[in-house]
Order: sequence, then C-alpha cells, then structure tokens
Amino acid sequence: MKAVVIYSGGMDSFTALHTARDKFDEVHAVSFNYGQRHGKELQFAHAVCQMNDIPHQVVDVRSINSLIQGSSLTSNIKVPEGHYAEDNMKQTVVPNRNMIMLSLAVGYAVSIGAENVVCGAHAGDHDIYPDCRLDFFAALNRATMIANYTPVELHVPFIGMTKGEILSHGSTLGLVAQDYKWTWTCYNGREKACGKCGACVERQESFAQMGWKDPLDYEDSEFWKQAVANG
Amino acid sequence: MKAVVIYSGGMDSFTALHTARDKFDEVHAVSFNYGQRHGKELQFAHAVCQMNDIPHQVVDVRSINSLIQGSSLTSNIKVPEGHYAEDNMKQTVVPNRNMIMLSLAVGYAVSIGAENVVCGAHAGDHDIYPDCRLDFFAALNRATMIANYTPVELHVPFIGMTKGEILSHGSTLGLVAQDYKWTWTCYNGREKACGKCGACVERQESFAQMGWKDPLDYEDSEFWKQAVANG
Repeated sequence: MKAVVIYSGGMDSFTALHTARDKFDEVHAVSFNYGQRHGKELQFAHAVCQMNDIPHQVVDVRSINSLIQGSSLTSNIKVPEGHYAEDNMKQTVVPNRNMIMLSLAVGYAVSIGAENVVCGAHAGDHDIYPDCRLDFFAALNRATMIANYTPVELHVPFIGMTKGEILSHGSTLGLVAQDYKWTWTCYNGREKACGKCGACVERQESFAQMGWKDPLDYEDSEFWKQAVANG
Repeated sequence: MKAVVIYSGGMDSFTALHTARDKFDEVHAVSFNYGQRHGKELQFAHAVCQMNDIPHQVVDVRSINSLIQGSSLTSNIKVPEGHYAEDNMKQTVVPNRNMIMLSLAVGYAVSIGAENVVCGAHAGDHDIYPDCRLDFFAALNRATMIANYTPVELHVPFIGMTKGEILSHGSTLGLVAQDYKWTWTCYNGREKACGKCGACVERQESFAQMGWKDPLDYEDSEFWKQAVANG
C-alpha cells in the first residue's frame, strides 16, 4: 500500500511521515509553497526527505493567493504572539486551506496509484481551525473515497493527540529529541525561531510535557511559559 | 446572498452563471487556468463577465500539473474523438479536478463572504467523471458546510439534467441560441471548434435536441451524428 503524506516540515507532519513509513510500503511526501513567511519549513522538509530517501514534491500554489486572502501567514499582517487558544490566532487562518491541500494531495495520490493520504492535523488545532477537526476529515473522507476511479482514504493519526502526545508517539517509533532539529515550526521565517508565535509557544509546551529539550534555538525561550499560563 | 460560480467558459457554466444571477443577489465568477489546451474558453469567460459586469477571477493553477498528471487535456496525448460514453474518454480525466476546483472556489467564497458555490456539472458527465456525480457533491457539501467559520453550500443545479435540458433551462431565463456564441466547449483550442471531440459531439447533440442552431463554427459539423449513433 502506498501513501502520500502532506509534509509541511513541522514537527507534527515530520512525525506523521515516520508514522506512515512504519505503516505503509511506500511513502511519498508533498509540501505546499503558498508564500508562507515561514517558507524555511520547506527547506527543512526537503532535507529530511533527502536524508530518508523519500520522494518529495514541492508544489508552488502561490498563484492562489490572489484568490484567497486574509491570513497573517501569507500577508503583511503581523503574526500574533501568544497561545493558540487566544482569539487573535484566528488571523493565522488561511480560508479552506486544509481542503485545498488535501484535494491536491488526493489528486497526486491518484496520479501515482496511492490509496492513502496522511495529514498530521492534531487536537491542538481544533480551537482555531475548523478544517483540523475530526468531523471535517470524516466528511471529506466520504468524498475522497468516491471522487475518482480508485478510492483514496484520508488518515489523521494525530487527530485526538496533543503535540506532546505526538512527540510521545514519535518516541515509540524510535525518534529522539535531536531528530526534531530537522523540523521547523515557527510562523516567522527568521534565523532562530521567535519563541512567541502560537506555533512556537505550543511547540515549546509540548517538549516540556515530554520532558525533552527542544533542539531548536529560540530568540526568546521563556515567553511561552507565561503565554501558556494566560492561554 | 452571495455566490461564487465556477465558470469554465463552456455552455453549462455559462448557463449556471445566469442561473446564479437569477437566484442570488451578487455573483462572482472564478475560472481556472490549468494549462488546458482549450485555454480559449478562458477568453470567452472573460468576455462574458465583462459584458455582464460580473467580477471575474482567473486563477493560474498550472503549477499543480507537476503534481497531477495523466490527462489528455493538459498533456501531449491526443484528445480522443467520439461520444463521451466511450471508454477512451477516460483519457480526459484530470485526477480529482472537481474537488480541487471546488476547494479553491470555497476558499474564495470564504474570502469574500459568499455563502454559496455553484458548479455546472451535469448528468452527461456522470459516466466518465466520478467527481461529477451527485453522491460526490453531497459528500463534499457536508465537508464545505463545516470546513470554515462560515458554512459554504455547494449548488449543482444541473446535476440531473442533460446538456439539452440545460439549454432548455437557459431558455426559461431568456437565453437564446445566439447567446451561446460566447461559450467555448471544444477540447481543442483551434480557431474553429473541431466538432469531433467528446465535448463538441455532446454540444452539437444538445443543440439538435433543443431544436436550436449552434452559433459556433465547426471544422466538421457532421461527425457528431455518427458518434452519437455509435455511443
């Protein structure tokens, strides 16, 4: 059985990639360049796929930004700081992003004869992103099973897990903290991770929950504690 | 209520555009440039929107062709001739095309505050394209209703109609045969419509069923009769 993994280059999809390799015979990775200011994650994704001999496609979908607007991830709006649970995190929503990425990944799966698409969406995304919830994936799966001559099944192995639990699951696959130095999470694409955006806050919280030292360097490695307390 | 119409420039989506204008307060059109050899349809779409004062977006999605392969509509494979019911028409399938276009249109709808997306898929497509069938749209609609903060409803007003019935419906909106000179159907993008591809055959059949003279010029305006007899 073959699978296509939607691989952003972050810690969740990195773990999803390893989960898929454990489960399926052949794994292909696909990443999307949608003009995210944290385009650095794509470099990390590429490096990981090279190291692991995983075929990797980066699809340039920047042209759709003329159509779909309104997210601080692809515009000049400042990325909000703090915990995901806060209302200002809604600024990071790209309208219908997951459905778009999943529909492209399913098209790719059909093209290469893969029966499965894996997405690393997790419980921590639920508050902010409606298209990261189980009922959305379940509904979309009913469509992907009948949209083409061959059914494609969607897999969201982390849909009920926090980021901390994803790390814990990664450890059962043999992953260690240092492996995550090849993952990029920060919404700002600077040299060091900012430590203050929602993604950085949640990442640092998850490493603390796991009792691991995060191998990434942060501009501010203390901010997250207060943000979690406020969140 | 606002609606986004997926507008290819063909006769079905042209009629869908007019149907949407009849039903909704504000209509926006979106077309996709996926490198189709019949790119001429986009020029027709643009002209119609200009004449009717309809905001029109053309989205360049050619970059996804590196990901999704295998259709004669976007490659060097010759477009097959004859009736749609024939097996060789499967060559015209772009993997997961409708889900991709619908997911982009839904993203656009969310961006502009539209609650509806209209697609002109019809009964004649069912044999060949799984993603033109009602059960697919019904499943996908359950996903688009919950994928974003605001629900988006999919409308497929022609899903139970043949192309002939679509023309008949168009006539109830006041459209006449001559209005369809601003629609392009042929899968080949030459000066005249070829008359022999599946799209041309079906179009000519539908005009005959309606008792209308097709205002388009054809390279071969007789071929379709034999193809329908064989189909």
